[in-house]
Amino acid sequence: MARVVDDADEQLTGPVLVVGAGLLGTSVGLALRRAGHEVLLTDVVEHNVTIAAGVGAGRPLTHDDTPRLVVVAVPPDHLGPEIIRALQAFPSAVVTDVGSVKSAPLVEVRAKASEEELGRYAGGHPMAGSERSGPFAASASLFDGRPWAVVPHAGAAEASVARVRALVRACGATPVALTPDEHDAAVARTSHVPHLLAALVAGRLVDAPAAQLVLSGQGLRDVTRIAGGDPGLWRQIVSANAAAIGALLGEVRADLDRLTDAVRAGRGDEVARLLDRGVAGTAAIPGKHGGPARADALVYVAVPDHPGELARLLGDAGTIGVNVEDLRIDHDPARPVGLVELTVAEHRADYLVDALEERGWTAHR
Amino acid sequence: MARVVDDADEQLTGPVLVVGAGLLGTSVGLALRRAGHEVLLTDVVEHNVTIAAGVGAGRPLTHDDTPRLVVVAVPPDHLGPEIIRALQAFPSAVVTDVGSVKSAPLVEVRAKASEEELGRYAGGHPMAGSERSGPFAASASLFDGRPWAVVPHAGAAEASVARVRALVRACGATPVALTPDEHDAAVARTSHVPHLLAALVAGRLVDAPAAQLVLSGQGLRDVTRIAGGDPGLWRQIVSANAAAIGALLGEVRADLDRLTDAVRAGRGDEVARLLDRGVAGTAAIPGKHGGPARADALVYVAVPDHPGELARLLGDAGTIGVNVEDLRIDHDPARPVGLVELTVAEHRADYLVDALEERGWTAHR
Repeated sequence: MARVVDDADEQLTGPVLVVGAGLLGTSVGLALRRAGHEVLLTDVVEHNVTIAAGVGAGRPLTHDDTPRLVVVAVPPDHLGPEIIRALQAFPSAVVTDVGSVKSAPLVEVRAKASEEELGRYAGGHPMAGSERSGPFAASASLFDGRPWAVVPHAGAAEASVARVRALVRACGATPVALTPDEHDAAVARTSHVPHLLAALVAGRLVDAPAAQLVLSGQGLRDVTRIAGGDPGLWRQIVSANAAAIGALLGEVRADLDRLTDAVRAGRGDEVARLLDRGVAGTAAIPGKHGGPARADALVYVAVPDHPGELARLLGDAGTIGVNVEDLRIDHDPARPVGLVELTVAEHRADYLVDALEERGWTAHR
Repeated sequence: MARVVDDADEQLTGPVLVVGAGLLGTSVGLALRRAGHEVLLTDVVEHNVTIAAGVGAGRPLTHDDTPRLVVVAVPPDHLGPEIIRALQAFPSAVVTDVGSVKSAPLVEVRAKASEEELGRYAGGHPMAGSERSGPFAASASLFDGRPWAVVPHAGAAEASVARVRALVRACGATPVALTPDEHDAAVARTSHVPHLLAALVAGRLVDAPAAQLVLSGQGLRDVTRIAGGDPGLWRQIVSANAAAIGALLGEVRADLDRLTDAVRAGRGDEVARLLDRGVAGTAAIPGKHGGPARADALVYVAVPDHPGELARLLGDAGTIGVNVEDLRIDHDPARPVGLVELTVAEHRADYLVDALEERGWTAHR
């Protein structure tokens, strides 16, 4: 069970070493520098360190440095060896990583690390990224408000886990505790399989006549955006999480078979059921900050029943700065005044009522 | 073959009647009012006309009105009957529609309309929408810069088609000429099948443990956003375009089978090929305004070879307001100055070179 962790851990102190100055590593550096921390950088590609340092993500690692925390930010195939190397090279440091898969690298680490070393390792995975890659795409605000999975194995020391949580908070993200197996099943569903299906949708565009693509709209761009991600990286992710992904793809294939048959046979009710499930699925996605999906509230306003007044009400709501999500009008043919029902975010409803009353409207919840 | 039509047609004149004050109809009304045109509104649901008029999309139709153009903006199942009704009710008007499918309604219109009436009908389809519906979600800018398919059948009079193009331009969109069959094949690929696959991805979230959904990121939200669209409307769209959609779903199913087998068998090369196809597909989507995908240009800048200077260059590029898409550094160990290669949009490259030189940099293309 995922737990959003709310206790205040230790403050992050001492230099943090980022191993791998790509998109994620450089963004970690930028976020930590923004928070005033000392950041050291290393990468097998020296050029990446130069850019990352150039954009302000830290300074190159020297032999005299003693990091208290090492963040391994390398491609999935290299996670295991680089975590082990960091545990051995910096015997007083806690080691974490930002890899997209957790169980497979852990098997490698367990096979080679001592019990003491294992106690100093606690994995992590920020739920943030970009279809672009490399240090130049990095941003100090990449993790702001995003969930960041903190994924300790059974042998991790609690002090190590606390230090990783401090890193997560210093980067502006929200720590979410998961076991490695829970994590890998979760990202198969919320990230890896969506990525693969986006790639299949995009792949169907390759041989399309140009005439057809002229009609591409924003919906198509949204569905396919993540399919532009680095295929080399995604190949490694898929390989490292093949069991969970393969199982889910089987479920999608069963759904697709049902859908295809229903479309071809003209069984509209069955098509509608699959569409309804899609709507329910979008509603199940939690709000942006990892909390529950946002609750709506209704605000009722009495409005003289002619068009100009409705426009004036909406204008006032706009001026007040509350976003109206939906609107319904209840007509009472016997009266020259109608009741308008405004749907707004729960936490803005009281404010809207007060502000409308101040402007002379009769409003209530 | 789709043709972006560039000739200047007649100006739109006379009142325009919008039949159906939902998201699209009300947005057409708002866009035309913004352009100074008279707009009349009707809807089987009177409530919708009240809201649409209230937000400024026009005024309710009266018996004395004589529209020159009728825009039928009703759900797919009602397109045929409403187009016929408009042709008969307004014998001097051109009739168009904004429906998502073109061939199926045309069959109905052809079966019931006279040759004269058929000459006054030319279908259309703006490539714009929202996962929200109803007049309250409407916007005057919904069509700005978007492609809008103008889809005349063989019997449409050229004067009718020209009036529809004038409507498209008045709404801020770009007319694209297609035949009904071309149109329906195109939207199956760029809109209907992507919608259905987004619904399948979203559907897999319904029964997921809440713990898994906490890790939802922006990628998942993008992929599934359109799956939140009105299932009743989409059921009708799928039904009206079943042949084209069914054929494409078969291709997707074949891809999915290959992908699933490759993931389970650990055949990374095959997974990578499908991922590569996805990347190529995203690159095939034309730019936002229906033109070709945007070209990039390289700008070279000489930079003293220490980190502070690179940061200063990027700061200056930001101040100049040119978006740097990518960056590479060529190191010349013999010199204290490096060459930095900036990737920017083709049409911004000359401006960037000039602006950088003004700030004391040595830059060239």
